Amino acid sequence: MMIERRHRLLGPAYRLFYDEPFHPVRGAGVWLYDAAGTAYLDAYNNVASVGHCHPRVVAALAAQSARLNTHTRYLDDTVLDYAERLLATLPDALQTMMFTCTGSEANDLALRIARMVTGGAGFVVTENAYHGVTSALAEMSPSLGLPLGAHVRSIAAPGKSAEFASDLQAAIDDLSAAGIRFAGFLCDSIFASDGIFSDPVGLLQSAIETTHRNGGLYIADEVQSGFGRTGSHMWGFARHGVVPDMVSMGKPMGDGHPLAGLAMRPDLSARFGAETRYFNTFGGNPVSSAVGIAVLDVMADEELQQNAAEVGAYLKAGLQSLAGQHETITDIRGAGLYLGVELRDGAAAVVNQMRAKRVLLSAAGPQGNVLKIRPPLVFSRENADQLLSVLDECLGG
Amino acid sequence: MMIERRHRLLGPAYRLFYDEPFHPVRGAGVWLYDAAGTAYLDAYNNVASVGHCHPRVVAALAAQSARLNTHTRYLDDTVLDYAERLLATLPDALQTMMFTCTGSEANDLALRIARMVTGGAGFVVTENAYHGVTSALAEMSPSLGLPLGAHVRSIAAPGKSAEFASDLQAAIDDLSAAGIRFAGFLCDSIFASDGIFSDPVGLLQSAIETTHRNGGLYIADEVQSGFGRTGSHMWGFARHGVVPDMVSMGKPMGDGHPLAGLAMRPDLSARFGAETRYFNTFGGNPVSSAVGIAVLDVMADEELQQNAAEVGAYLKAGLQSLAGQHETITDIRGAGLYLGVELRDGAAAVVNQMRAKRVLLSAAGPQGNVLKIRPPLVFSRENADQLLSVLDECLGG
Repeated sequence: MMIERRHRLLGPAYRLFYDEPFHPVRGAGVWLYDAAGTAYLDAYNNVASVGHCHPRVVAALAAQSARLNTHTRYLDDTVLDYAERLLATLPDALQTMMFTCTGSEANDLALRIARMVTGGAGFVVTENAYHGVTSALAEMSPSLGLPLGAHVRSIAAPGKSAEFASDLQAAIDDLSAAGIRFAGFLCDSIFASDGIFSDPVGLLQSAIETTHRNGGLYIADEVQSGFGRTGSHMWGFARHGVVPDMVSMGKPMGDGHPLAGLAMRPDLSARFGAETRYFNTFGGNPVSSAVGIAVLDVMADEELQQNAAEVGAYLKAGLQSLAGQHETITDIRGAGLYLGVELRDGAAAVVNQMRAKRVLLSAAGPQGNVLKIRPPLVFSRENADQLLSVLDECLGG
Repeated sequence: MMIERRHRLLGPAYRLFYDEPFHPVRGAGVWLYDAAGTAYLDAYNNVASVGHCHPRVVAALAAQSARLNTHTRYLDDTVLDYAERLLATLPDALQTMMFTCTGSEANDLALRIARMVTGGAGFVVTENAYHGVTSALAEMSPSLGLPLGAHVRSIAAPGKSAEFASDLQAAIDDLSAAGIRFAGFLCDSIFASDGIFSDPVGLLQSAIETTHRNGGLYIADEVQSGFGRTGSHMWGFARHGVVPDMVSMGKPMGDGHPLAGLAMRPDLSARFGAETRYFNTFGGNPVSSAVGIAVLDVMADEELQQNAAEVGAYLKAGLQSLAGQHETITDIRGAGLYLGVELRDGAAAVVNQMRAKRVLLSAAGPQGNVLKIRPPLVFSRENADQLLSVLDECLGG
């Protein structure tokens, strides 16, 4: 009845997780609770990155909301302090920070800047990429199943091809043959919807060189891989030792508050600002900025990047051990607390069984056969043990 | 020094209001305060529609943020209750509500749906329209000063042309002559950036008939005119007695919280949902939905639409009286608390003088010669008197 009401009010484009949809009513840390008070271990929601309803983030949100909420056409310290904090985590070459409300808006802004600066219109993405819901991004997000734009080419994710850079060159050449100038390569640094490909470290280096050699801009989509999730680094691209031209960020940035942004080289923002003005009504407002600062403070004080590294390594080792006992596991991939478990026989059944046993995760990859594990970064070894134990049960004996 | 820091961190695309930029540190109701505690009368910020930092909205935000903040892939009552509340204010034909974080995202989604349903790519907008910052909307927003898309035509706002519908037909014919099928007319119901054109009541009727006769969809952009601002009606289009195919909404919806949405006919959402899925990470989350409901509650309990009608009429009469004393005023337009004062000699000097006298407003129109007055809806007669008195001084004797 609630599902019928939902279908009637929101329409059929909205999809629910699980054969038996989940209805949480409360969240705290790594836990989501249903109306009966039953706790579910959340091993999926990277948005609540510092934990569901973190009290310090909620307090910052409430305090700034009661004090002032305006926009970037007035002077405000909060947004500048936040920009400075973010830029300090990024390579020195990236010196400008622009703010949006969603990762879609951040990636879309990157496209606008790349087109303006390069004079090109052609973009390359990976073959099951997801980069956002705007008109421009939907036709660059093959995972949505819609036709790609005529100016878009896709290449295999690197895990499936030793020849990532040569595939990229071939795609650029194909654009060129169609009379379309190359503008840039938009790339999720952990290839989340492609099925999670994290290794070998350094795999992005030849791609960024190829991008630059062909006059394009390299846009690192860090919506999935950013904010300490990969454990060893604050940003997914940094793990591969590269310096992108633009870096988009989103989901975990506000622990659930709608907050996203785009960092870039100052020559790119200078060129964009010379051609047009930018105003995002809610982007970079004092409340969103205060929330973003609180998230960074919590990450530092609770050492969450380090926790992602430690618990992530522990969990990955446990998954590798399970792989030795269950032939259906064909690969374990990922870094920190972004892990993928590739299954021979599809992942949907396992995902639903785990939900029934009160562990929440989902699936990724073009065949949906990769368990996607990306819990809040406060995930503990004990939480990892619970996940491993339930997964062991669900994979059968 | 703060301006230099801002330029360095955010880049030159961000612009500030006023020759002497304003730096608020606190807001309450219709007031913004600087660090010295000086109160400024806010006659401009329609985002803080029920007043800056409204305690009931802040309380709803804080309470739901502490309880649960997830997304639309889980079941949740809050988003359904909110959708139902919004749809109850809209024409019966509009039965589906989709949620985004910004008006840009809502308008961009409308474009995607219109293209999919009509099979066309051509859109018509007004000649100084602003509809958003995405790639697709920037090339449909002439006020940004960038080249329009090849599939976009613009027509004069109705205040400047008795022949609004015939201009629209000519634009559609021009698209057709270029081999571009018409997809829709995207129209701000109060023509805010065009210079605020509200009368005569009914002026949209021939435009919507023309749109439908040519197989297009009529998209009402209610980001400016929605949520009771025009006083007599909840929605700007309703004042003109028309029923759009889609209605986008944004700015005032969350009193500053990033919240926006798109209402539509159910056959449109059915078609869209049959072709693709839609997921907006933050759009329609429980916190945003609780905030949206609180805004609707405050509007009802404080009778803010009625206040917009009453104080708006009082303020408009006062402005008309000033027009009799100051020849520089060439026209008074608008409805409710969305008013435009057209000046012979440009509005920038007056805007800056009023800021110096602690009344905040801005300018609109292709020549920037229309004072744009759109205060929080809690604006009182006393506030109106203050605005009129300061404007009288600034227009000189």
